Amino acid sequence: MSLNTFGHLFRVTTWGESHGPALGATVDGCPPGIALNEADIQPWLDLRKPGTSKFTTQRREDDAVRILSGVFEGRTTGTPIQLMIENTDQRSKDYGEIAQAFRPGHADIAYHQKYGIRDYRGGGRSSARETAARVAAGGVARAALAALVPGLQITGYMVQMGPRAIDRSRFDADEIARNPFWTPDAVAAADWAGYLDDLRKSGNSVGAVIEVVASGVPAGLGAPIYGKLDSDLAAAMMSINAVKAVEIGDGMASAALTGVENADEIRMGAEGPEYLSNHAGGILGGISTGQDIVVRFAVKPTSSILTPRKSINLRGEEVDLVTKGRHDPCVGIRAVPVAEAMMACVILDHLLLDRGQTGGVRGRIG
Amino acid sequence: MSLNTFGHLFRVTTWGESHGPALGATVDGCPPGIALNEADIQPWLDLRKPGTSKFTTQRREDDAVRILSGVFEGRTTGTPIQLMIENTDQRSKDYGEIAQAFRPGHADIAYHQKYGIRDYRGGGRSSARETAARVAAGGVARAALAALVPGLQITGYMVQMGPRAIDRSRFDADEIARNPFWTPDAVAAADWAGYLDDLRKSGNSVGAVIEVVASGVPAGLGAPIYGKLDSDLAAAMMSINAVKAVEIGDGMASAALTGVENADEIRMGAEGPEYLSNHAGGILGGISTGQDIVVRFAVKPTSSILTPRKSINLRGEEVDLVTKGRHDPCVGIRAVPVAEAMMACVILDHLLLDRGQTGGVRGRIG
Amino acid sequence: MSLNTFGHLFRVTTWGESHGPALGATVDGCPPGIALNEADIQPWLDLRKPGTSKFTTQRREDDAVRILSGVFEGRTTGTPIQLMIENTDQRSKDYGEIAQAFRPGHADIAYHQKYGIRDYRGGGRSSARETAARVAAGGVARAALAALVPGLQITGYMVQMGPRAIDRSRFDADEIARNPFWTPDAVAAADWAGYLDDLRKSGNSVGAVIEVVASGVPAGLGAPIYGKLDSDLAAAMMSINAVKAVEIGDGMASAALTGVENADEIRMGAEGPEYLSNHAGGILGGISTGQDIVVRFAVKPTSSILTPRKSINLRGEEVDLVTKGRHDPCVGIRAVPVAEAMMACVILDHLLLDRGQTGGVRGRIG
Amino acid sequence: MSLNTFGHLFRVTTWGESHGPALGATVDGCPPGIALNEADIQPWLDLRKPGTSKFTTQRREDDAVRILSGVFEGRTTGTPIQLMIENTDQRSKDYGEIAQAFRPGHADIAYHQKYGIRDYRGGGRSSARETAARVAAGGVARAALAALVPGLQITGYMVQMGPRAIDRSRFDADEIARNPFWTPDAVAAADWAGYLDDLRKSGNSVGAVIEVVASGVPAGLGAPIYGKLDSDLAAAMMSINAVKAVEIGDGMASAALTGVENADEIRMGAEGPEYLSNHAGGILGGISTGQDIVVRFAVKPTSSILTPRKSINLRGEEVDLVTKGRHDPCVGIRAVPVAEAMMACVILDHLLLDRGQTGGVRGRIG
Repeated sequence: MSLNTFGHLFRVTTWGESHGPALGATVDGCPPGIALNEADIQPWLDLRKPGTSKFTTQRREDDAVRILSGVFEGRTTGTPIQLMIENTDQRSKDYGEIAQAFRPGHADIAYHQKYGIRDYRGGGRSSARETAARVAAGGVARAALAALVPGLQITGYMVQMGPRAIDRSRFDADEIARNPFWTPDAVAAADWAGYLDDLRKSGNSVGAVIEVVASGVPAGLGAPIYGKLDSDLAAAMMSINAVKAVEIGDGMASAALTGVENADEIRMGAEGPEYLSNHAGGILGGISTGQDIVVRFAVKPTSSILTPRKSINLRGEEVDLVTKGRHDPCVGIRAVPVAEAMMACVILDHLLLDRGQTGGVRGRIG
Repeated sequence: MSLNTFGHLFRVTTWGESHGPALGATVDGCPPGIALNEADIQPWLDLRKPGTSKFTTQRREDDAVRILSGVFEGRTTGTPIQLMIENTDQRSKDYGEIAQAFRPGHADIAYHQKYGIRDYRGGGRSSARETAARVAAGGVARAALAALVPGLQITGYMVQMGPRAIDRSRFDADEIARNPFWTPDAVAAADWAGYLDDLRKSGNSVGAVIEVVASGVPAGLGAPIYGKLDSDLAAAMMSINAVKAVEIGDGMASAALTGVENADEIRMGAEGPEYLSNHAGGILGGISTGQDIVVRFAVKPTSSILTPRKSINLRGEEVDLVTKGRHDPCVGIRAVPVAEAMMACVILDHLLLDRGQTGGVRGRIG
Repeated sequence: MSLNTFGHLFRVTTWGESHGPALGATVDGCPPGIALNEADIQPWLDLRKPGTSKFTTQRREDDAVRILSGVFEGRTTGTPIQLMIENTDQRSKDYGEIAQAFRPGHADIAYHQKYGIRDYRGGGRSSARETAARVAAGGVARAALAALVPGLQITGYMVQMGPRAIDRSRFDADEIARNPFWTPDAVAAADWAGYLDDLRKSGNSVGAVIEVVASGVPAGLGAPIYGKLDSDLAAAMMSINAVKAVEIGDGMASAALTGVENADEIRMGAEGPEYLSNHAGGILGGISTGQDIVVRFAVKPTSSILTPRKSINLRGEEVDLVTKGRHDPCVGIRAVPVAEAMMACVILDHLLLDRGQTGGVRGRIG
Repeated sequence: MSLNTFGHLFRVTTWGESHGPALGATVDGCPPGIALNEADIQPWLDLRKPGTSKFTTQRREDDAVRILSGVFEGRTTGTPIQLMIENTDQRSKDYGEIAQAFRPGHADIAYHQKYGIRDYRGGGRSSARETAARVAAGGVARAALAALVPGLQITGYMVQMGPRAIDRSRFDADEIARNPFWTPDAVAAADWAGYLDDLRKSGNSVGAVIEVVASGVPAGLGAPIYGKLDSDLAAAMMSINAVKAVEIGDGMASAALTGVENADEIRMGAEGPEYLSNHAGGILGGISTGQDIVVRFAVKPTSSILTPRKSINLRGEEVDLVTKGRHDPCVGIRAVPVAEAMMACVILDHLLLDRGQTGGVRGRIG
């Protein structure tokens, strides 16, 4: 990870601000010959798109992606793929006071201190709009993964809103696409709807926990010691706006386990090793084992709220700040497709890295 | 992070296995003119050294570091600093069965699947011994930080062992160095001693939570969007053996907060902005704010235990595996100095990166 | 250098093909607060623009650059600067036979062998059109250099066309902008006009040698051993289409010198060291000395010519190939502004790198 | 290339100074399962070793390499390989005056200006001794190439000493190992012996031109636009001490060719494309074509000579400087094995990179 680029061989550089003319992603290192056109990417963007329910920002963006390079006659050529999304609904007039003052809990003050200048319109580069570019890049990664690892599946969903967690006994994968929260628990979805509506009306916001699972990932991806698959996943998820924690497998709960409990015991199956549990979240020593890769992360509540909070302005004066404008009451909701995109990019990158070093040959067992 | 290297400008590459002749770190990009000799680094290694109490592995290593390059007449020259630690107490005979079978929850199987070959002696490259090299590199980073940011302070400590958390009302920084667990809570230390002793005797192990705080870090370190300070810290901590989760500030608990609660309100102090809370853990938008940087991570229990666990061997046969040898019952204990070292390296790296791009000038407030 | 990116801290990723909708450069790591708008970049593109004389391709492109991100109210913000140039004059019909056969001396066959697919329209990614993106990025680098190192000056010019070299005793810097060859020798310019016209009419093309000089570069840029300033300059120039050799200072001629001749003797001037010669081209041990940085490179003749050459096609059939279309008879001409741009990018990058590691402080003499 | 590291996937970081306790290379990303032990590497070091004839420095070093990590039971494990060479013949007393004054044409002054401190003993980091570490790393690369591309052959030799070039009509590959200059022309070898002896006795030194050829390299290695094989080769060769120019194929002479002359015409052979000439040096568009890869570079004369030259010292005083000590009269001689090593490393790196992105599948012809 290097300023605005992530990835080793499959490298994604995003660019653009919330209220500039456009934003996008420069995707380098994609394998050649992959079938790809805008229609392969657009559906993922549509999932992340703002304005689809009252629980996300009312800003209306088509988020129509254009492929400007790297694809010829419907296939990737191995050269950089430029993905551009034009910004069409920027209402700069909304952002008057923000130009002069710093929202508590927001990147405003940090950008100002570092750069001495910031594009305050809609949060500029720190806006969650940047994540549209990741989702577009993730669409490319998914197309490549579909060609290289046909059975691979990536699924994200919300498991907690504020203090309200789902009941995993009600987990229904089909439910995820049916509610505006991408949650597999229909009861939680109903509960959250009222809870979030109340918060929103009271000028408040709330955090969330997202889980992403990749199944069908081959064993052997990731590399010791600093190119570990879990290190790269942690960095990738932590780079998403408002994320404050990342867990692999049992995550923080691992600390409370004993070695006896934590051991994912191994049996020999017809296709190779099988595991009796997955505390490890599919990664041992930074390398995938073939089990499901399980990542979870916490998203803090949106800092742009209608409730006044104490702050200061550029002149150093103390102010009470209210953030008007169109903001997500639970920014975690739209983080779900973003997390899936990051998972896709990281796994593809490690697939290429592993193929480079080892040729993709696996050590035999049995 | 790239296979065995981390860092952008201050780059650390570690090398070596548990039972090879030596291990070490190649440290590149250190500022020139920093006072440095072995005596500046050795004390940090002594803190991590095995065999200091019955709660760590009984392997006895001097862990004596030698500087082989990059230092001239007691000062860094700006060229690579090679830090070498010879392995002196390798008892390879201990590792008979491990050569043929895979410890559940251990990297054994993942290395085998990826590489088709593994140095099974003491875990080879996946051994926690690798962290000695990080601690040595961290010693270099601390020396540079001491010269460049005199007030900066890095402190790590254990806040939970198994399910038993400290009571933060008893937090006493002076206590940390007084007990074998690096915990600021003397009561917890006493409690854990018995708890861990029982676990150890029963052939079991347990996880832990470590917290590291850096105070006196200048505002402005870190860079959007993928070179964020928190992304790099997450990757750095996740790269430590057995770590399964990383939190910044309130971490996973952020999810349960509302925006009103989470806002770290700002007042104007004599020296610049002051904050009324630190839910953010000192980082907003990936950039340091000048508040304390607070990182926490979970370490899973040691997978090498005396209690038999179900597994398979190289021939695909199912076995019941017991790991003899000298293992840490709570590997989290020795992760404390390692975490401090990683924090030091990441902060120095971002200090240099920021100085490169911005010249270190800060945006004015007031 | 990494697929389509170059630079360490000031990083340029170019994207786009000759006949796609657009091409451009994603510029990351630019210092913040630099005055910049399209009018600062456009003049450099106009110098490289095709169709300005009968000695360059008759393709007509406006090469109008748009800044899509990273600039706010006329100043850089420190975030990625996206520079986009739309392709407006693509006549794909010209490229029928090229789709099926490989031009000798051209990248056609290499791209096909590597990727199994290539965008044959106008050479796709291997077209010299890609250099427009470099020139745009170079415009950003120049703006930053103007702010950071006011006296720095970069000048490129042609010193040889085919076997015909300039006479350095006639060197006139003011002449460079007056002739279509960017040569400082007016007599050579007149000679080359007839020479190149004859070659063009006969369906042939010719090579050239370009020299670029940077003056006013501070001492201390570049870093041993693999981040040497001359290594990075060599890679940068070699990455320009059709370049086959790069020289620093006396270059190949250094081989014929004795140590007595080659020593650039040093005297003490009022401002610091002064040198009695510059065989080294301003770089010793990979680090700038404060003398003029002198780089020279050879450009091979355009491989797209009207004279039939023996080749093969996709089906492995032997063919006689004639390349119709609009091609530069001496592609070296338009390499001059490209070389200046690469020099600007590399120097700025090393300025930031050096500032990062050393703080920009210089060792004292006297 | 990044300070002291080169390579993308096969990454080499060298460390160490001329007169420190040791120097070496940290080699990361090597494919696993490659047969390797010290005896595979030592012969290459013996070729470069000083003191083997009166034409190289009389310093006597065994240059015995030790593998400290990354190899288990005679095979690489895929983890970092640490190669260490102890310095055994450092006579620091020789370097009195050099500590205070700057040799003209040497890196002394550049290091001092950049870092404010330099290890003046034997040139410290800028000593040609650093190249021993490259040769060791090259030994690892050769072992991997031997396993992955059995027919690949790398051969370096000297083609010019001072102004005296070889006669290519006398080229005899078997002659290369028979003379102390690694030249394929026995007549030139005899001529150079007297020429160089005279220069040496007169306290002078001289430059040279080295050529390295790799045959049997698969088509498809290298990647546009900035990860070109020729860009990486140019950087690699330019990073060798005292190199001032790098040529690919016809190099500088390409400038004098017409397009008709320069076209390497293609015919269809039994195994695939065959070329009627190789002006391109085996690389088109930055990608290998399967032809011989031909690289040539100029080495300037040693700057440490017994003839007094004008210089200054640390106090800014003007001095006449004579460099005593044991120096190579033609440092180009020992650059031959170094160049072979760099070629091996770059080719292996690109082989892994290509395999990562494309899977190593080649586009069909015929």
